[in-house]
Amino acid sequence: MHIHDHDRLDRIGMPEAVLCSEKTTAQLERIIDDLAATPSPVLLTRLFEPKFAELSPSAQARLDHHPTSATATMHGTLAPRHDGRRVAVVAAGTSDQGVASEATRTLRFSGVETSEIVDVGVAGIWRLERALPEVLAADIVIAVAGMDAALVSVLGGLIAGPLIAVPTSVGYGVAEGGSTALHSALASCAQGVTVVNIDNGFGAACAAVRMLTRFDTGPD
Amino acid sequence: MHIHDHDRLDRIGMPEAVLCSEKTTAQLERIIDDLAATPSPVLLTRLFEPKFAELSPSAQARLDHHPTSATATMHGTLAPRHDGRRVAVVAAGTSDQGVASEATRTLRFSGVETSEIVDVGVAGIWRLERALPEVLAADIVIAVAGMDAALVSVLGGLIAGPLIAVPTSVGYGVAEGGSTALHSALASCAQGVTVVNIDNGFGAACAAVRMLTRFDTGPD
Amino acid sequence: MHIHDHDRLDRIGMPEAVLCSEKTTAQLERIIDDLAATPSPVLLTRLFEPKFAELSPSAQARLDHHPTSATATMHGTLAPRHDGRRVAVVAAGTSDQGVASEATRTLRFSGVETSEIVDVGVAGIWRLERALPEVLAADIVIAVAGMDAALVSVLGGLIAGPLIAVPTSVGYGVAEGGSTALHSALASCAQGVTVVNIDNGFGAACAAVRMLTRFDTGPD
Amino acid sequence: MHIHDHDRLDRIGMPEAVLCSEKTTAQLERIIDDLAATPSPVLLTRLFEPKFAELSPSAQARLDHHPTSATATMHGTLAPRHDGRRVAVVAAGTSDQGVASEATRTLRFSGVETSEIVDVGVAGIWRLERALPEVLAADIVIAVAGMDAALVSVLGGLIAGPLIAVPTSVGYGVAEGGSTALHSALASCAQGVTVVNIDNGFGAACAAVRMLTRFDTGPD
Amino acid sequence: MHIHDHDRLDRIGMPEAVLCSEKTTAQLERIIDDLAATPSPVLLTRLFEPKFAELSPSAQARLDHHPTSATATMHGTLAPRHDGRRVAVVAAGTSDQGVASEATRTLRFSGVETSEIVDVGVAGIWRLERALPEVLAADIVIAVAGMDAALVSVLGGLIAGPLIAVPTSVGYGVAEGGSTALHSALASCAQGVTVVNIDNGFGAACAAVRMLTRFDTGPD
Amino acid sequence: MHIHDHDRLDRIGMPEAVLCSEKTTAQLERIIDDLAATPSPVLLTRLFEPKFAELSPSAQARLDHHPTSATATMHGTLAPRHDGRRVAVVAAGTSDQGVASEATRTLRFSGVETSEIVDVGVAGIWRLERALPEVLAADIVIAVAGMDAALVSVLGGLIAGPLIAVPTSVGYGVAEGGSTALHSALASCAQGVTVVNIDNGFGAACAAVRMLTRFDTGPD
Amino acid sequence: MHIHDHDRLDRIGMPEAVLCSEKTTAQLERIIDDLAATPSPVLLTRLFEPKFAELSPSAQARLDHHPTSATATMHGTLAPRHDGRRVAVVAAGTSDQGVASEATRTLRFSGVETSEIVDVGVAGIWRLERALPEVLAADIVIAVAGMDAALVSVLGGLIAGPLIAVPTSVGYGVAEGGSTALHSALASCAQGVTVVNIDNGFGAACAAVRMLTRFDTGPD
Amino acid sequence: MHIHDHDRLDRIGMPEAVLCSEKTTAQLERIIDDLAATPSPVLLTRLFEPKFAELSPSAQARLDHHPTSATATMHGTLAPRHDGRRVAVVAAGTSDQGVASEATRTLRFSGVETSEIVDVGVAGIWRLERALPEVLAADIVIAVAGMDAALVSVLGGLIAGPLIAVPTSVGYGVAEGGSTALHSALASCAQGVTVVNIDNGFGAACAAVRMLTRFDTGPD
Repeated sequence: MHIHDHDRLDRIGMPEAVLCSEKTTAQLERIIDDLAATPSPVLLTRLFEPKFAELSPSAQARLDHHPTSATATMHGTLAPRHDGRRVAVVAAGTSDQGVASEATRTLRFSGVETSEIVDVGVAGIWRLERALPEVLAADIVIAVAGMDAALVSVLGGLIAGPLIAVPTSVGYGVAEGGSTALHSALASCAQGVTVVNIDNGFGAACAAVRMLTRFDTGPD
Repeated sequence: MHIHDHDRLDRIGMPEAVLCSEKTTAQLERIIDDLAATPSPVLLTRLFEPKFAELSPSAQARLDHHPTSATATMHGTLAPRHDGRRVAVVAAGTSDQGVASEATRTLRFSGVETSEIVDVGVAGIWRLERALPEVLAADIVIAVAGMDAALVSVLGGLIAGPLIAVPTSVGYGVAEGGSTALHSALASCAQGVTVVNIDNGFGAACAAVRMLTRFDTGPD
Repeated sequence: MHIHDHDRLDRIGMPEAVLCSEKTTAQLERIIDDLAATPSPVLLTRLFEPKFAELSPSAQARLDHHPTSATATMHGTLAPRHDGRRVAVVAAGTSDQGVASEATRTLRFSGVETSEIVDVGVAGIWRLERALPEVLAADIVIAVAGMDAALVSVLGGLIAGPLIAVPTSVGYGVAEGGSTALHSALASCAQGVTVVNIDNGFGAACAAVRMLTRFDTGPD
Repeated sequence: MHIHDHDRLDRIGMPEAVLCSEKTTAQLERIIDDLAATPSPVLLTRLFEPKFAELSPSAQARLDHHPTSATATMHGTLAPRHDGRRVAVVAAGTSDQGVASEATRTLRFSGVETSEIVDVGVAGIWRLERALPEVLAADIVIAVAGMDAALVSVLGGLIAGPLIAVPTSVGYGVAEGGSTALHSALASCAQGVTVVNIDNGFGAACAAVRMLTRFDTGPD
Repeated sequence: MHIHDHDRLDRIGMPEAVLCSEKTTAQLERIIDDLAATPSPVLLTRLFEPKFAELSPSAQARLDHHPTSATATMHGTLAPRHDGRRVAVVAAGTSDQGVASEATRTLRFSGVETSEIVDVGVAGIWRLERALPEVLAADIVIAVAGMDAALVSVLGGLIAGPLIAVPTSVGYGVAEGGSTALHSALASCAQGVTVVNIDNGFGAACAAVRMLTRFDTGPD
Repeated sequence: MHIHDHDRLDRIGMPEAVLCSEKTTAQLERIIDDLAATPSPVLLTRLFEPKFAELSPSAQARLDHHPTSATATMHGTLAPRHDGRRVAVVAAGTSDQGVASEATRTLRFSGVETSEIVDVGVAGIWRLERALPEVLAADIVIAVAGMDAALVSVLGGLIAGPLIAVPTSVGYGVAEGGSTALHSALASCAQGVTVVNIDNGFGAACAAVRMLTRFDTGPD
Repeated sequence: MHIHDHDRLDRIGMPEAVLCSEKTTAQLERIIDDLAATPSPVLLTRLFEPKFAELSPSAQARLDHHPTSATATMHGTLAPRHDGRRVAVVAAGTSDQGVASEATRTLRFSGVETSEIVDVGVAGIWRLERALPEVLAADIVIAVAGMDAALVSVLGGLIAGPLIAVPTSVGYGVAEGGSTALHSALASCAQGVTVVNIDNGFGAACAAVRMLTRFDTGPD
Repeated sequence: MHIHDHDRLDRIGMPEAVLCSEKTTAQLERIIDDLAATPSPVLLTRLFEPKFAELSPSAQARLDHHPTSATATMHGTLAPRHDGRRVAVVAAGTSDQGVASEATRTLRFSGVETSEIVDVGVAGIWRLERALPEVLAADIVIAVAGMDAALVSVLGGLIAGPLIAVPTSVGYGVAEGGSTALHSALASCAQGVTVVNIDNGFGAACAAVRMLTRFDTGPD
C-alpha cells in the first residue's frame, strides 16, 4: 500500500501536492479519502474539469476546486510567510492563463504573496513596458509563455533577479505540444534564466518556494 | 551533361547562383570553367574557406571570394536597380554575421541597396532601440537570429512592412543545428512573419528580390 | 486584466485578429463581449465548428461564422484597398481547402482582392498548367500544400514575384501533422520561397498584407 | 569466421555486393583477399575515396575503383541480360550525381542497360520537359533527389511504369541528412511510387533487378 | 472548382481513387455526387467506419463499402487483366489485417489476381515456412508489417522477385505510429526491398500495378 | 560595428561574458583587442583548446586560460561578495568535470564562494551519502549530470533549497548529445528543480548569481 | 485464416498471450471463440476497459477481467513453478500501478511467485530504503517507472541480480509518451540493466520467465 | 577528488570497469595511475584506437589493449566461474563485430565461458540455421544487430532462454546512429526480449553476469 507523504512539508519545505492527471478516478478517490483523515493543507494539481466531474459527489465536496488553474485544495492553505517578498507571474497571452494560474495558486497556497500579469507578449512590446515597474519590483519572476517564448529573453535582459520560465503547450503546427517554447527558453540569449517542464506552473512555483525558504530562513 | 541556367535571370529575375557546399571540388572546377565562358555575373554561395582552398589556383583566380559570407562572384555584379528602395539585414549576434553577410552580399550582387545592422539581440533591448530608426526606414527587413530567435518577434511587433526571418545554426545544446531558432521563428507571435531555411541568407535575399521585382516593375 | 489591441490596425497595418483554438469557451465569450463594444472590424481565426457550437447563442449571434475556413468576423470587413493588386491563393488538393480559405478570408477581410485556385497538385501537372495564366497574373502567390508540398517548388520555378508557402497538416503516416510539408517547403529547390507555420493561412495572408502596405503606401 | 555468399547470385538473382562504409580497413582487406580466390564478379559499394586510400596497394590493385559512385568491382561485371529492357536513372541536381552513379554502376554491373539523366530538378521544369521522351521510353525509372524531392511527384504523375525514389542526404538546414527528401518521397501525392533508404542507389538498382528477373524470366 | 480526374486511368493506368480520411463529410458527399454521374469504376480509400456512418443515406447507398479495408467502390471494378500473374499480400499479424485488405482490395479492384496470407510473423517462423510455397509462386510480394517489421528482411532473403514493404502503425510505445516499422523496412538488410508510406496498402498495390502495366503491356 | 556591453554588470548584475565557441578566430581576436582597452574583468566561455590554440600569441597572452573548464578571464575577477553564502557544484561523473568547472569558474569569477564535488553518481549511492553534509550546507546546489541524470531527482528529494540542473552531453547511443539528460531533469519527480541548456554550466552559475544578487542586496 | 499458437507454451515456455489493444472488437470476439474451444490457459493483455465494454456479453463472460492491469485470463492460470524463486515488481509512483500490475499478473499467470511494491520513487528515497530488504531478497527485480525513471539507476546500484526496467508513458510535457523514461533507463549509469518497450509490463514478465525457465530447468 | 570503486566487485558482483570514450586523455592517465596501485583486475571500455594512441607510453604499457573490441585490461582477468554455463554472442554482420567483441571480452574478463558467432543476419537465413544448434545450447544469448535488427525477433522466436539485444550504430540513412535498430529491438514481436543502449556490448555482458551471479550463487 502506498503511503502519503504527510511529513514532507516539515522536512524540505515543499508544499504537499497530488498530481491528478495521470491517476485513475478510483485512485484519486482513495487518495482524497486518505487525505481527509489528516489536518494538513494539501494541493491537488492538473485536476482538469472532466476528471473533477468524474469524482464522486463526496470526493468533490471535500475539494475547493478552481477550474482555470485545474487545482484544488483541502484543509485550506498554508499560513502567509516570507513577509515583504513577492513573486510576479507574467504570462504572454490569454491562452497561457491556465498555466499561469497554476503557478499563482501554488504560491498562494504556500503562503507567498503573488501578483499575476497576463497578456504582455513581446509582439506588442508597449504592453510589456507598461507592466514593467510591477515586474521589476518583484523578488522572483515566473515567465509563462508558449509558441516562441520570446517573452523569456526580453524579460531576462531587463531584470536582475531570478527568472524562471514555464513554456506552455499552447499553439499549433510547430508550436503544438510546447517543445518550441521549451527549446526557445533553454536557448535564451539572456543569461541565467532557468526552465521547468512544459506547462509546469506548479514546478516553477516550487522553485520559487525553494529560494524563499533558503534565503529567508537560512540553512536546512 | 548538366546545363547552366544562363537565361534564368531574364526569365524570372532571380540572380544566377551556384550552391557550392554540396558539390565536389571537381564538379565546382568544371562549373567555374563553364561559367567563365559566358559574360553574365554569377554568384557562388556556401563556398566556405576549406573548399575554396581546395580549388585549383586558376579556378581561385577567376573568383572574387569573400570569406565572411562564404560567397564569391564572377564577372562583377548586376547593375543597381530598385532606386530608392532599401533592405535592412539585422542580426542578433556576432555569431550570426556570416549568414547576415550572405544575405547582404546576395542583395548587393543583385543591385539592391542594403544596410547591415549586427549585434542587436533582444537580451540587450536598448541596443535594438538605438538601431530602430534605421530599421523602420527600410522597405524590407531580413532578421537573422539563432538560439531562441526572439529578435524576430520583437521586430515583427514594431515594423509594418515585410519581415523575413533567417534562423541560424549558431548555438549548442538544444540550439545546435538551428531547429530551435527555426521553430521559434515559425511560431512567432508576431503576425505575417515569413521564414526561410536555417542559415539561408541567400534565400531571404532572393525573397526580397522577388518583392522588389514584382512591386517596382509590375507583372511578369 | 488583458487589454485588446484596438489601435493595432493604425499602428502597423495588420488586421486585428483573435486566435480562438487555444482559448477556453469562457475566455472567448468574454473577448467577444469586449469586442462588441467597439466599432472596428475584427477577424476570429481557428474557430472550428465544435468550439463555435459551444459558444452561447448571444455570442454566436454577434459573429459572421464561415465553417470551411473556421473564421468569423465582427463589424464587417475593412474597406477595399491596394487597388489593382491581386493575391492568388493556390491549393494542391481538396483537403487543403480549409487552410486556403483561411488565407482567402483574411485577405478579403483586409480589403485585398484575392482569387482562389484549388486542386492543382503536381501529380496531375496538366491541371496546374491550365491554371497558370491566372497564377502568373497575380502580384503575390500563396501556395497551400500538404504531404510532399511539391507544388511549392514547381510554382517557385515558374513565377518571378513573391511566393509564400503554407504547409498543411493533411495526410497520414510520415505526412501526419504537416512536418514533411513544412520541411519540404523550407528545403525547396526554388530560390526565394518563404514559409509560414503549418496550417497558418492567416499568417501567409498577413505577410501579403505587409508587402502591399509597404509597397503601395510607402514608409511607416 | 564469416562466410561470403558466393552462391547468392544463383539463388535469388541479386548481384553479390560488399557494403564498405561500415567496415574497418582490416576487415575490408581480408574480404578482398577472400574474394580474390573465387572467379565470380563482385561489386563493392560505399567505398569512398578516403577509405579506398587507406587500403594496401595490393588490395587497391585488385579493385576497379570508380570514385564518383564510390563503387568498385572485382572479376569484371555480369553478362548483359534483359535484352531490350532499359532503366533510366534521373537525378535532380549535380549534387545527386554520386548516388545516381551508384545506381547506374550497380545496374551496369548486373548486365542491365541503363541511361543516366542529371540536373533536371523541377525548379527549372523546362529542363525536365526536354528529357521526358527518354524517361518515358525506359521500363523502370529511378528518381534520385535530395532537399524537397519534388522531382519524385512530378515524374510520378507523368509516367505509368515503376518509379523508385532514392532520397539523398544533399542539403543543409532542414534538408541535412536527407530525412526531408525521404519523407517527401514517401508522402508523394503520385500513386504507387516506392522508396528506398537515403542515398541507397544500390538498393534502388537491386529493386529494378528484382523486377527484371521476375518479369523477364518467370517464376523462381 | 475542382475537377475529378476521369481520364487518369487511360493516361497512366493507375486506378482512379479518392482518399477520404482527410476530407470533410460535405466534401465527400459532393465528390460522390460528381462520380455518380460518370460510369467508370472508382475506389474510395481510408473511408473508416465513423466517417462512412456520417455520410447521408443516399451517399452511403451509392457505395459498396468494405469495413475491414476501409475501402468502397462505385460502378463495380475493372475487368481482370494481367492474366497468369498473381500478387501475394503477406501480413505479419492479425492487427495488420486492415492495411493488408486495403492492398488486396485495390489490386482486385484493378483486375489483378491476388492472394492474402495473414499472421505469419517471424517470431513464429514455422508459420512463415508453411506459407512459403504460395509466397514464392507469386510474381510480386507485398509485405505488410508493423512493430519491428522483421518479416520484410526475412522475406527479402528468401524471394527473388519484387518485394514491396508496407509498414503499419500497429503497436504502442516505440512502435506507435509506425515509424519504427518504416525505418526498419528502409534499413532492411535484404537487398532491393522498396517501401511505401505507413499504412499505405493502396500505394503498394499501385506500385504492383505499375509493374504489371509496364511489363505485361510494354511501353506507354 | 558591434558594441561590447561594458555597463551590463552595473545594470543587471550579471558577469560580463563572451561565448567563444560560435565565433571565428578573427572575430575573437577583434573582441579581445576591444576588451583589452577597458579595465573591467571579463569572462570568456567555451574557449576549447583547439580554438585557443588558433589565437595569435598576443591574444593568448592577454588571457588567463583554464583548459578543463574551457574558460578564460581578462583583468582578473570580481571582488568577493555575498559573504557567508556558498554554492555547491555537484557532478555525477568524471566526464561531467568540464561542465562542472565552467559553473565553478563562473561563480568564482563573480566573487561567489563555491565548492565542487565530483563523482557522486547515484549508481554508487553511498558516495553521494558521504558527500551529503557538504551539499546540504550550501545555499544553492548546481547538479551537473549526463546520461540518465538520476542525480538530479535524488538530490531534489534530499535538499530544501534551490537546485539547478545542468544536463551534459556526455554519453553515447541514446545519451549522445544530452537530450536524455535534459528531458530527464525536466521530468524530474522532485518538485521545484529548474534546468538550464545542455552543458550550460555558465548559465547555471548566472542563475545562482541572480538569486544571490536579489536576496542579499534587495530590489534593483 | 490465422492460426492461434496453441503449442507455443510447450515449445519455448512463454505464456500464450493475445495483445488486444491493436485488434478490432470483431477480431477479438473471433479469437475468444477460437480459444474457448481449447483447454489451455490464455492471457489477454492491454484489454483496457473501453474495449472490454465493447465485447459481446458472451465474450465478456468467458473472460476473467482485471481492470487495473487491463489483463484477462481464460481457463485459469498455469500451475505454480520455479519453487523458491520470487520476482519483485517495484513501481515508482501510483500512476505506474497499471503497468506494474500487468507484469505481476503475467508472472502469477505463469505460475511465478511475485511481490509488488508501489510508490517508492527516489524523490522520497527513505520510502525506497524501507522497502529495500524485500527487494534485495527477490531473484529478479522489475522496476516500473515513468518521467525521469531515476528509480532504475538507484536500484541498479543497490542490487546484484537481474534488473529489468519498464519505462511508462506516465507524465506530461517532455515526459509524455514515455520516451524520456525509456531513454533514461537505456542510458542508466548502473551496469547491466536491461530495458523493454514503454508500458510493456508483459514483456518484462516474459523476460523473467525466460530466465527462470532456463536456469531452473536447464537447456531447451 | 574522485574515488575509484575498488570494493564494487565484492558488493554487487559486477566487473569493475572504466568507460573511456567520454574522458580526456589527462583524466584517463590519472585513472590508470590510480588503478596501477591496486591489484584487482580492471576492464577499460570504449578505448578506441585514436584515444589509445594519445596515451603516454607508460600508460599504454600498463594496458593489455584489444583494438577490435576497443577494450583493455589491467591486472589480468577474473577467475573462471559459473562452471558449465555458457553465453553465446551472436552478431548479424561483419560490421557488428566490434560491439560483439566488447560483449565477449567483458564476459571472458568476468570469468564466463563465451562463444562468438558472427555474420548470421536474417537476409541469409540459412546461415543462421547452420549456427542454430550452438546458439540453442547456450544459457544466455546476446544478439548484436544494427540496421533493422531483424535477427532479434527471429532468434526470439526460436530460443526459450534469456535473450539480450544490443542494437548497433552501423548503417547510413535511417539506420545511422542506431535508433532504428534500437526501436526495432524494443518493438520486437518476440516476447520477453530485453534491450540495452546502442553499441552497449559491455552492458549486455553485465546483464548476463547479473543472471549468472544470482542464479548460480543464490541471494546477495
